[in-house]
Amino acid sequence: MKVVITGGAGFIGRKLAIKLLEKNTLDLSGGAAGPVDKVVVFDVAVPDPPFPDDPRLEIVTGDISDPDTIRALITADTDAVFHLAAVVSAGAEADFDLGMRVNFGGTRTVLDVCRALGTVPRVVFASSVAVFGGNVPDIILDDTHLTPQTSYGGQKAMGELLISDFSRKGFIDGRALRLPTVVVRPGKPNKAASTFASSIIREPLQGDKVNCPVAPEQPMWLLSPRRVVDAFIRAAELPADAWGASRAVSIPGITHSVQEMVDALAAVASDKVRARIYWKPDPDIQKIVSGWPMHFAADRGRALGFTADDSIENIIQAFIDDELGGAYVP
Amino acid sequence: MKVVITGGAGFIGRKLAIKLLEKNTLDLSGGAAGPVDKVVVFDVAVPDPPFPDDPRLEIVTGDISDPDTIRALITADTDAVFHLAAVVSAGAEADFDLGMRVNFGGTRTVLDVCRALGTVPRVVFASSVAVFGGNVPDIILDDTHLTPQTSYGGQKAMGELLISDFSRKGFIDGRALRLPTVVVRPGKPNKAASTFASSIIREPLQGDKVNCPVAPEQPMWLLSPRRVVDAFIRAAELPADAWGASRAVSIPGITHSVQEMVDALAAVASDKVRARIYWKPDPDIQKIVSGWPMHFAADRGRALGFTADDSIENIIQAFIDDELGGAYVP
Repeated sequence: MKVVITGGAGFIGRKLAIKLLEKNTLDLSGGAAGPVDKVVVFDVAVPDPPFPDDPRLEIVTGDISDPDTIRALITADTDAVFHLAAVVSAGAEADFDLGMRVNFGGTRTVLDVCRALGTVPRVVFASSVAVFGGNVPDIILDDTHLTPQTSYGGQKAMGELLISDFSRKGFIDGRALRLPTVVVRPGKPNKAASTFASSIIREPLQGDKVNCPVAPEQPMWLLSPRRVVDAFIRAAELPADAWGASRAVSIPGITHSVQEMVDALAAVASDKVRARIYWKPDPDIQKIVSGWPMHFAADRGRALGFTADDSIENIIQAFIDDELGGAYVP
Repeated sequence: MKVVITGGAGFIGRKLAIKLLEKNTLDLSGGAAGPVDKVVVFDVAVPDPPFPDDPRLEIVTGDISDPDTIRALITADTDAVFHLAAVVSAGAEADFDLGMRVNFGGTRTVLDVCRALGTVPRVVFASSVAVFGGNVPDIILDDTHLTPQTSYGGQKAMGELLISDFSRKGFIDGRALRLPTVVVRPGKPNKAASTFASSIIREPLQGDKVNCPVAPEQPMWLLSPRRVVDAFIRAAELPADAWGASRAVSIPGITHSVQEMVDALAAVASDKVRARIYWKPDPDIQKIVSGWPMHFAADRGRALGFTADDSIENIIQAFIDDELGGAYVP
């Protein structure tokens, strides 16, 4: 079985690729099932650090919006595509044309190429809670409208519509996952407004001081890297008839205030670790984050078998185990 | 003031063009206000029958998805664009690529050209209740999600997202109207599944027998041609700050069963006129129509000052007055 992961060099794509290679099986109910013979990791640049050596792994670089590139990538022997390639929220807001080209145009190119194969491949699309915004209820329901307040959210919402219509027409067998904020991300802070949600856990555990730019009472809608990888695989393996009239679903997460997150850090590590956090509000970041919906019913996601993390403590412990080799700076 | 109407040779575009010429003023609050110096009617073919002679009227034919054509059409002196050009529902379902090219690609071309002007023109987009479908509540609310079950609906929903994001970014000042089924359309039946809603009124009034393919208890969500033209003009004239986080709105209509529609025909005309309707169910049409949402709260539309018709009787009388010269075949 051949699997393609676009944006595969990114944090989540990399974990997904490695998990598929380890698992070595994918059961596309109603489609192919069997060993994972080939995982093609596609991204704009070669993965850094490199992936572990594996004869089943292939690295391809190129532009997601270029039809020739994608035709060479997604060939008739492709059983499943995980389409994660995207310009992040702040990037799509700063450069509208880049966001349209990569986030919308790239998705359309992937879907057009998949359609042209005639094999109705499984396609799992990384959407985002950024599709929500504006005038929404306090708790986002499965039938709440999409009124995104960023170009990134708009491009993801258009991608969801394409995924659903291409699936309804029988061109692909698609699924779109609206992902909560994924914590704890390893590595360095990036320019995403949500980057602090990982930084306030990651940096203190490595002995570094870190600023929390938002108020302690700010709630966050969270999912761990382990659960997000599980969600992608479950989404691929669910049968087509489980999805109904829409191929999009809000993935269940857990809602915690920033205060609860840092208290959990103290519980898992120590008060001394927590004391490495200082609180200097950043009104710009607070304003953006305050606009994000943070409470979701996610009933449909639960009914489809997607699972949230047990607790924020377990998310933090998993980060220590998976990314810090089981040890933190006390 | 220069106004462009795409799809202007169609039934609604024609009425809108003529109304703007008669009214001879458009008050784009916060934008230009003044006499209508030029109305450009754009469509794939020359209007048939021709428009009345008017020195302010210009007819242009071409392909809505061709950037060069649209750049020559929507020039820097354009104050408002009414973007109605579309392949109808059945057409977009039968030819997916045509629907994507015209309904989505045409909209994107119009918006890209408007953006490039740098003048932030007013753009009013004809959307549709076809953006709704699938698992929706019995009464569609203003925050009900868009899960279209046709490619036409999907393309209109993507157009709405573009209109909102282009407006949020300050590229255009856009508005998108989700229109009910417009009755009574003049002329001949077309291939739309909803065509019977006009035919069952229009044909008997002209002395012709007509089949009603759906059950008498089938509800319909209706708006008259007069009100739809008023809605486009109101949408153009509303100030930008009236719209908030989304530029899309469901236009209020009235819900009547087919039985109520034909009873109103008897009340306005006669039992003899009504008796020209026969009832031979068409399961295919019934199935499509049964899937359409027919009950809308439309609170936001009402709050924005859009108005539904007073009664189905008045809709029928207006058709007799406007299209049949005040007389019907008794």
